[in-house]
Amino acid sequence: MAKLDFPVARWASALEPSALQRMLRLLRRPDLISFALGLPAPEFFPVEQLEDAAEKVWRSDPRVLQYTPSLNTLKTHVVELMKHRGVACREEQIFLTCGAQQGINLLVRLFLEVGGKVALEELIYPGFQQVLTPFQYEAISIPTDPDTGMDVDALEFHLRKGERPAFIYVIAEGHNPCGVSLHPDKRVRLVELAREYQIPIIEDDAYGFLRYDKPLAPLRALDERWVCYVGTFSKILAPALRVGWLVVSEELIEPLSIIKESTDIDTATVSQRIVEAYLETGRLPSHISKLRHEYKARREVMISALEEHFPPNTRWSRPESGFFVWVRLPDGIDPVELFQVAIESERVAFIPGSAFRVNAQAPATQYVRLNFSHCKPEIIREGIQRLERVLSSVLVS
Amino acid sequence: MAKLDFPVARWASALEPSALQRMLRLLRRPDLISFALGLPAPEFFPVEQLEDAAEKVWRSDPRVLQYTPSLNTLKTHVVELMKHRGVACREEQIFLTCGAQQGINLLVRLFLEVGGKVALEELIYPGFQQVLTPFQYEAISIPTDPDTGMDVDALEFHLRKGERPAFIYVIAEGHNPCGVSLHPDKRVRLVELAREYQIPIIEDDAYGFLRYDKPLAPLRALDERWVCYVGTFSKILAPALRVGWLVVSEELIEPLSIIKESTDIDTATVSQRIVEAYLETGRLPSHISKLRHEYKARREVMISALEEHFPPNTRWSRPESGFFVWVRLPDGIDPVELFQVAIESERVAFIPGSAFRVNAQAPATQYVRLNFSHCKPEIIREGIQRLERVLSSVLVS
Repeated sequence: MAKLDFPVARWASALEPSALQRMLRLLRRPDLISFALGLPAPEFFPVEQLEDAAEKVWRSDPRVLQYTPSLNTLKTHVVELMKHRGVACREEQIFLTCGAQQGINLLVRLFLEVGGKVALEELIYPGFQQVLTPFQYEAISIPTDPDTGMDVDALEFHLRKGERPAFIYVIAEGHNPCGVSLHPDKRVRLVELAREYQIPIIEDDAYGFLRYDKPLAPLRALDERWVCYVGTFSKILAPALRVGWLVVSEELIEPLSIIKESTDIDTATVSQRIVEAYLETGRLPSHISKLRHEYKARREVMISALEEHFPPNTRWSRPESGFFVWVRLPDGIDPVELFQVAIESERVAFIPGSAFRVNAQAPATQYVRLNFSHCKPEIIREGIQRLERVLSSVLVS
Repeated sequence: MAKLDFPVARWASALEPSALQRMLRLLRRPDLISFALGLPAPEFFPVEQLEDAAEKVWRSDPRVLQYTPSLNTLKTHVVELMKHRGVACREEQIFLTCGAQQGINLLVRLFLEVGGKVALEELIYPGFQQVLTPFQYEAISIPTDPDTGMDVDALEFHLRKGERPAFIYVIAEGHNPCGVSLHPDKRVRLVELAREYQIPIIEDDAYGFLRYDKPLAPLRALDERWVCYVGTFSKILAPALRVGWLVVSEELIEPLSIIKESTDIDTATVSQRIVEAYLETGRLPSHISKLRHEYKARREVMISALEEHFPPNTRWSRPESGFFVWVRLPDGIDPVELFQVAIESERVAFIPGSAFRVNAQAPATQYVRLNFSHCKPEIIREGIQRLERVLSSVLVS
C-alpha cells in the first residue's frame, strides 16, 4: 500500500494488506485451480432448505426487520449443537456473533491492551494476526509440531519464566495452516496451565465440526471458566449469513454485549432468524455428516494424488479435521518463488507457509498449505498434477 | 455491573452499561408507552417488497452463500442514492458496513489512538461514546445550540488554542439527542476549519434522508477529502438487515477494508443482496417520500399535543429532520426523577437528557428526549397526556 497521505492513527499509517491478501489478488484468473483459500464447497450449501427457512421467517413477524435483542431461541439451538461437540453449556453462556472472525475480535478487544502480550503459534491464521495489529502487541510465539500441534512444553516454559500473556490463542482442531489436531494429552495440559496461571484460552473451533476420524472434544469440554470457545455456522452451513457464537464464562456476556453493541449494534436479525428456522427443521446434524463424508473423500483424493505424483522427498500430513493439507517441500525450493511459477506456468495456486508467520522474525518454512474442501475431486487430481509439473521444473532447473 | 472477576483489559474491567442501557431495562412493561428509543415504525417496513427482493437473490446464484467481496453493484446504487442527498461521489469512495454504528466504529479505529483527543458535542449519541470508551480518550466537548446546532465558534477557539483532535464528530441532520439541524452557515464554516486544520470530520447522517422541511445538503457535499460520511439503510429500509455505507476519500478504502476484514470478514452477503435487489426495483425514493410524510405527521401530532397539554414554562424544538423532539422542562424538575415517576405512575417513558452527556463533568441538563417515529399518532397523543399528568403531579408536590 502506498504511504497514506491522511492523518490516521500511527499503527494504521503502517497498515499493509497481509502477504495472504496480496497473493489473493493474483488469483483472479478464471482458468486457475486454487488450493489457496479456506472456502467451503458451494455445491454443498443447502440452498433450498435455507430458502425454505428464509420464507418462514419473512412474513411471520415484522419484528424480524426491527432492532431486536439476540435471539434466545437461537442460543437454545446452539446449546443443543454443542452437545454434538461433546460440550455441556447453558444459554446464559452463549453469545451470538457475526461469524468466528467477530468472535475472536470481540474476545481480543476484551482481553488485550495496547502493548500487551499474547501467546500464539509461530504459524497461525493471518486473520487472527490482523485482529492483533492495532494493539502493537508482543507475541510469545510457540512452535507447532506437525503431528501433535502446539508445543505446550514451550508455552509452559514461558509461563514458568514469568511471562503473562493476556490470553492463549489455540486452534485445537483443523489447525490453520498446519492441519493438525492438538493431541488429547496436550489439550488436558493446556487447560491445566490456563487454570494454574489464570490465563484465558481463546479456542478457535471454526473447523471443529468437520472432524473426519474418531471424535475428540474441544478444550471447552475440559473447563468452562478459562476456555472461551469460538464457533461458527460459516463452514457447516454458509459463510454469507455471518452467524457464529461464543461459549464463555457467564460473567463475560455483559461486557461482550457492550463491546458488540458499539461495533455493529447486533448481528443481522434476518440472518439469525434464517439460521434458527433452518436449525428448527433438525436437518443440521445430518448435513454435517454429509459434509464430513464429502470433505473426507476430498482429503483422500488429495492425499492419493500427492502419493502418486509428488517427488519422494516431499512430506505431508493426513489432517483429521478441517480444510488443509500441510506439505513440506524439498530443501532448496523457495515456496514463495514456487507460488509465482505455479500461477504463471501451470495456473495452480496454494499458499506458501511463510504467509502465516506471526512476524518476519519467525523461522522460515519449507511448507505450503493446500486446501482440499473447495475443488471437486477431479479438479483436485488435475491441480496436484499441475503442481507436480511445477515442482519438477523447479527441481530440474 | 458487578466488578468483573476475570482478567480483562483495564478499560474493560470498568465497563458499565450506559445510563441509557440501564434505563432500557426498565422499559419491558407491555403497557408502557415509550418515547425512549430511536426506533423506526415497524408498520412502514416494506415487508412484502423485501420478501420479493429476497426471493430473487436466493436460488439465482449459490455464491450468495459463499465468502464474497462487497457487492460493487450495491455501491453503484449507493452512488445514485447519494445524489438524492445532494452528494456527488464515485463507487471507489463507497465502503459497505453493517449499519451506521459499524461505519462510525471503523472510522474511529482508523483515526484514534489510545489516549487521543476527539472533538464532539457535550450531549451526543451514547452509542458513539461507547465506541470511544476503549481508547481512554480526551474529549474536547463543544456546546450545542438548540436552534442552530454545534457551537462552531467554540470548536474554532479550541483549534486556535492548539488543540488537535483526531477527528470532529458531527450529526448535522436530525441531531441525536437535540433534534436540531446544523445551520447552513455553520456547515460551511465547519468544513473550512476541517480543511484549514486538516482534521477529518465524521459526519453521522443516520437520519439525513428523513428531513421534513426544505432539503439541506450534508457536509460531504462541501468537501470530499475531509468529510467522512456515514450512511445507513436502518432508518429508511430496515435495521435488521444491518447494511450501511461510508463515503470517504478513496485512499481510506484499503485501510478500512483491512480493519473491517479483521472485524467480521464482511457484511453478510445475503443482506447486501436483499438490499441490492430491493434498490433494483427503484422503489426506495418513493418509500423515503412516504416515510418523510408519515414521520412529519407524527412530529406534528407530538408538537400539537405538547402545545395543548404541556405547562407554559416548558419549551421544545420543531425538528426539521430525524426522530426526536428535545424538550426543556421547567426549572426545579429533575428529569431523572421524572423518568422514574413517569414509568411507575403513568407507564410512559422518555430519555432524560443527562443520559447523553459525554462525561459526568458535562453540565447538567433540564432537557428530555422524546421519540416521535415509533408510536402511532393516537398513542403519541395518549403518551403526551400521560406525561403531562406526571409533570403536573411533580410541579404541584
